[in-house]
Amino acid sequence: MTGKIFVIGLGPGNADQITPQASRAAAEAEFFFGYGPYVDRLDLRPDQTRIASDNREELSRAMAALEKAAEGAKVAVVSGGDPGVFAMAAAVCEAIEAGPKEWRAVDLTIVPGVTAMLAVAARIGAPLGHDFCAISLSDNLKPWDLIEKRLLAAAGAGFVIALYNPISKARPWQLGRAFETLRGILPATTPVIFGHAAGRPDERIEVFPLSKADPEKADMATCVIIGSPETKIIERGERPALVYTPRFSAGSSQ
Amino acid sequence: MTGKIFVIGLGPGNADQITPQASRAAAEAEFFFGYGPYVDRLDLRPDQTRIASDNREELSRAMAALEKAAEGAKVAVVSGGDPGVFAMAAAVCEAIEAGPKEWRAVDLTIVPGVTAMLAVAARIGAPLGHDFCAISLSDNLKPWDLIEKRLLAAAGAGFVIALYNPISKARPWQLGRAFETLRGILPATTPVIFGHAAGRPDERIEVFPLSKADPEKADMATCVIIGSPETKIIERGERPALVYTPRFSAGSSQ
Repeated sequence: MTGKIFVIGLGPGNADQITPQASRAAAEAEFFFGYGPYVDRLDLRPDQTRIASDNREELSRAMAALEKAAEGAKVAVVSGGDPGVFAMAAAVCEAIEAGPKEWRAVDLTIVPGVTAMLAVAARIGAPLGHDFCAISLSDNLKPWDLIEKRLLAAAGAGFVIALYNPISKARPWQLGRAFETLRGILPATTPVIFGHAAGRPDERIEVFPLSKADPEKADMATCVIIGSPETKIIERGERPALVYTPRFSAGSSQ
Repeated sequence: MTGKIFVIGLGPGNADQITPQASRAAAEAEFFFGYGPYVDRLDLRPDQTRIASDNREELSRAMAALEKAAEGAKVAVVSGGDPGVFAMAAAVCEAIEAGPKEWRAVDLTIVPGVTAMLAVAARIGAPLGHDFCAISLSDNLKPWDLIEKRLLAAAGAGFVIALYNPISKARPWQLGRAFETLRGILPATTPVIFGHAAGRPDERIEVFPLSKADPEKADMATCVIIGSPETKIIERGERPALVYTPRFSAGSSQ
């Protein structure tokens, strides 16, 4: 007998930004696997079981969830944001690839969500309005020199850069190093957005020029967006300034 | 008197993927500006007014919407997907920057949504599970050589690439040229995903190796995702194959 596994994106953390598809999948599931704070966003019923694990145990969590589903259960694996962006969908795929044949027969549904960079961008204007990239700054899973190479390639080609996992206790220096690297090739005035907990009660969205961007402004719940040389700031008097990247680029006919 | 403007992301096109925040904003607005097919996704009430315009009239649409809001009306500007990704949020910011001072005083709320690449990725596995970028292939707003430079920079640095606006009647050759360019530096086996209308009744998600990727498989409603050299395919017998990019990268300690 084969069960079902939903990999659910809960969005930025505001109940108002959870899609009906995600809510319905959560209502159908019996067992909930995930990082504790994400599972706690759901109001589980007494007949639903919470199986929380630590933030860094993604692969073992995916394996436990698949094992349960292969036994016939309806299982949810929950992610903040979108499960496909530096989150559980890839871990579940890795587990399926490495696991027993039965896991390939499990009915898998991935439910997308609003990922952090979109939520942060919406609160400040349209910094991702032109070509952009998303880089995880965690060097647990890839070497630092590769991260640096990607930062330089992206900034050099004019991409706006969204940084996920910018900083943690175990990774204190990486964000500062990333800013240093980028100061070598981007204008000092390039806007850097620190988007903490977008859409949640403790939201804090701050903008600094790259020359003054302080890594201490970021924490694990922050998505950092670094503009391109074309990113602009619109002052609006009493209203907060807008940061946006024009749709057109220098050299276009518009 | 100053009104309100919501820039609303309706997600991929499935009512099930519209956030409650977007639905509430739509319920509050009186005038709806947007590309016709997007506005038509909403069930407007008799007291709500539809002002549809052509796909390519983004700036004039944004100006008309701001003008209406500055008169005191509650206005919605609707986008498919997320309004911050190659959509109306940047056009509204451009209009605010260039427009009369009163437009800066308008109460602006941008409502994020599930953007196309996330919806396509969720239907096939986790191709965006590692660092990735999003590039609009439209050369209406930037020169083609810049697009080519970005494709090479991104693929060369190991990013997965999501292509928006891959093809249209007015831009028939660009996607084929992009594939050719990428064939010069990516393995022939690199998976290319054509994600047409993800989540909608006419959804069609197809995967080909880069060597056989045919631009004719794409249309205006397609988001094309091109893997990195690390993107993998998991065959699952009767179930559709999964495409995913591992969280870890060659050279990491895992």
